[in-house]
Amino acid sequence: MQGLLNDWRRTHYAKETTPDIAGSDVTIMGWVHEIRDLGGIIFVVIRDVTGRVQLTAPSKKVEAEILEDIRKFRKESVVAVRGLVQEAPKAPNGVEIIPNEIKVLNLSNQPLPMDPTEKVQAGIDTRLDSRFIDLRKENVSAIFKIKGQMFHTIRDYFYNNGFHEINTPKLVASATEGGTELFPITYFEKEAFLGQSPQLYKQMMMGAGMDKVFEIGQIFRAEEHDTLRHLNEAISIDAEASFMDDVDVMKVLNDMLINVLTDVNDKCSDELSILGYELDVPKGNFPVVTYDEAVDIVNSRGVEMEWGEDLSREAEKALGDSMGGFYFLTEWPSAIKPFYVMPQEGDEKYSHAFDLMYNNLELSSGATRVHQHDLLVKQIEERGLNPDGFGSYLKAFEYGMPPHAGWGLGADRLTMVLTGSENIRECVLFPRDRHRLTP
Amino acid sequence: MQGLLNDWRRTHYAKETTPDIAGSDVTIMGWVHEIRDLGGIIFVVIRDVTGRVQLTAPSKKVEAEILEDIRKFRKESVVAVRGLVQEAPKAPNGVEIIPNEIKVLNLSNQPLPMDPTEKVQAGIDTRLDSRFIDLRKENVSAIFKIKGQMFHTIRDYFYNNGFHEINTPKLVASATEGGTELFPITYFEKEAFLGQSPQLYKQMMMGAGMDKVFEIGQIFRAEEHDTLRHLNEAISIDAEASFMDDVDVMKVLNDMLINVLTDVNDKCSDELSILGYELDVPKGNFPVVTYDEAVDIVNSRGVEMEWGEDLSREAEKALGDSMGGFYFLTEWPSAIKPFYVMPQEGDEKYSHAFDLMYNNLELSSGATRVHQHDLLVKQIEERGLNPDGFGSYLKAFEYGMPPHAGWGLGADRLTMVLTGSENIRECVLFPRDRHRLTP
Repeated sequence: MQGLLNDWRRTHYAKETTPDIAGSDVTIMGWVHEIRDLGGIIFVVIRDVTGRVQLTAPSKKVEAEILEDIRKFRKESVVAVRGLVQEAPKAPNGVEIIPNEIKVLNLSNQPLPMDPTEKVQAGIDTRLDSRFIDLRKENVSAIFKIKGQMFHTIRDYFYNNGFHEINTPKLVASATEGGTELFPITYFEKEAFLGQSPQLYKQMMMGAGMDKVFEIGQIFRAEEHDTLRHLNEAISIDAEASFMDDVDVMKVLNDMLINVLTDVNDKCSDELSILGYELDVPKGNFPVVTYDEAVDIVNSRGVEMEWGEDLSREAEKALGDSMGGFYFLTEWPSAIKPFYVMPQEGDEKYSHAFDLMYNNLELSSGATRVHQHDLLVKQIEERGLNPDGFGSYLKAFEYGMPPHAGWGLGADRLTMVLTGSENIRECVLFPRDRHRLTP
Repeated sequence: MQGLLNDWRRTHYAKETTPDIAGSDVTIMGWVHEIRDLGGIIFVVIRDVTGRVQLTAPSKKVEAEILEDIRKFRKESVVAVRGLVQEAPKAPNGVEIIPNEIKVLNLSNQPLPMDPTEKVQAGIDTRLDSRFIDLRKENVSAIFKIKGQMFHTIRDYFYNNGFHEINTPKLVASATEGGTELFPITYFEKEAFLGQSPQLYKQMMMGAGMDKVFEIGQIFRAEEHDTLRHLNEAISIDAEASFMDDVDVMKVLNDMLINVLTDVNDKCSDELSILGYELDVPKGNFPVVTYDEAVDIVNSRGVEMEWGEDLSREAEKALGDSMGGFYFLTEWPSAIKPFYVMPQEGDEKYSHAFDLMYNNLELSSGATRVHQHDLLVKQIEERGLNPDGFGSYLKAFEYGMPPHAGWGLGADRLTMVLTGSENIRECVLFPRDRHRLTP
């Protein structure tokens, strides 16, 4: 069989081949990034997940057979090279490798559907169609390295702050919030739906006495959006905490995001510089603007908005222009928030709901939740929904549901903020929208 | 409104109320676990996520109004108590709290659908129907605390060993392995399916140069099983690594599981003792048995099995009885493994596939993968599948796919092993099987 690894193993990643190990023999494995054949000498740049290293094959020093093999290389083939590291100040990492053994692990076809070494970016659809090659570009993989760090920091934050990880089902019998934007599934003889949010489940876990929980998982929304910030399958970061209110969980969210911004800035500085993006890490608490104030700001900027309406796209932009960066939007009208949101005592027109915004992008929604069974039933009915459809959820409120609050945060949108991406599709390996179900 | 938190906040969890803080005022929040009214003195045990603490209300020391409030408590109501901690050697944690202020946050209805303080376990269906109460039992919540630690340790292992976290789509256009056991979805105008495995996606990420990846996420299988070890929605832990073979990734899996067993043993000793379960932490490498040897063992134990068959349930049991604990089952016949499994060079009847077993339970399957385009197409065809259905997957093999290997590990099954559970439904918050889609 062709291209078997057999007893070959990588000894060093590209970035580990530095002048410190000059004089050592190494085995490098990666992709043929560039070939320059000058006749008497051949230069090959090999790329792996960590970076690039140069192979230098002068005809005087390298066996003819190896030179012949190198001449058969094609761009983006996978190769393994054993050779001697020597200093070469002008090469990547300041070293070059003089090959003494070579193995082609997989020859690439030509022409490539897209060239990862080209400076000009192909269109997003071409790139997504060949995502496996698109991701070989360092400005594309940088986004997912940052996204990985984001999840890592977020989990550490939850672990360190007593949040318990949960997994709730994505196959559900009925709608979370009574909406119609659900994907139907055939589940054996029954009809089921894909979960649009773990909301009801994480609330039930409060009733279970789990105190503080988080879940990072898929959500599915059958919305017919065609925008740069909506997808039909997304990753949601959900948190819920007992004996806390909206202000408490806003602080959790704020602190967690400061950690994320700090870590990405510190640990992903190479990736940020590849992206040419500078992250602004705010200190302390994000600013707060109330819904009432937001209505005034939006109108003062020439965008019409009546009290009680949700923010239109134009209104979000006007508000974002005025506020900038991260800010909380609080004290929303109860009527435009879901039934599980706690109204304000004495002025029930207003609620304990908040959104976290970044410029004009909504990143998170949260609230103090209703924990009183009767109020919850009343609010479900007021929204024209039937409490009978919420049987097992409502039951949890009859037998000791604690006061609680929480939020959901869009992981893919947060990645946009961390990487300066304008299109959410840049931040998802295999995005799903109305028109795209492959690869 | 009733039961609002207002400016009350918990100052201490139950387990934090120890003799060290005798003389301090604390605020405790939790569930009424037990009430004993002896007339002149009332004892109330309050339970929270960390344990229990005793409220002691002697009529001589406590205001009449508070005594009256306490007498209105019902089991499993949510209450907040402000009071003075004093030493009480016979009470939980060696302290009791003398209340000076009380707040009922949510009164529980009576009778309870299930009593979490009862010693006798209800049947699994009753328990799952009222999962939010079932989870208040410490022998139930212990399972999910251990499961949480399991995920934590696994992620740390991946982070520390250079594995990059990925999220791949669960909405897919076609079957991963060509199987028919898929849940169909209506995706706008198209038909789609729920992903039964991230297999093809994680392999494409090898082609993308991501080197080593992991994903922890939902998988969906429309199998009509009705057993103690299958569910239709499960959490899969998937790993895939470039420039590695089956033996390399078996070592990754082995090391990771030793870490998990060690951490659960060390950090969840309370939970293990609640479950009355002792974890055996094997040292070093798990034993290996080849498929050929397994056939002999099974037959020698009076269970008929022909070479080339998959293990029947009876065969698994016979093998498990012989091997015990964790062991790898290797060198499977190629014909009963999926198309992406690498055959052995020179003896293609055998493959580079392995399973990880625990007693008679299959926990993980893995293999060296085929990375050569032509061989992959051949193997797809040999299994009666049409390569045209694998277009975007196959394309990744034409342009520089490295040799790679990987595995998938059932998180819920691993939790069974870590907690000594006989039924997988014990290890999933809201299990989904053919008959259960709620809560």
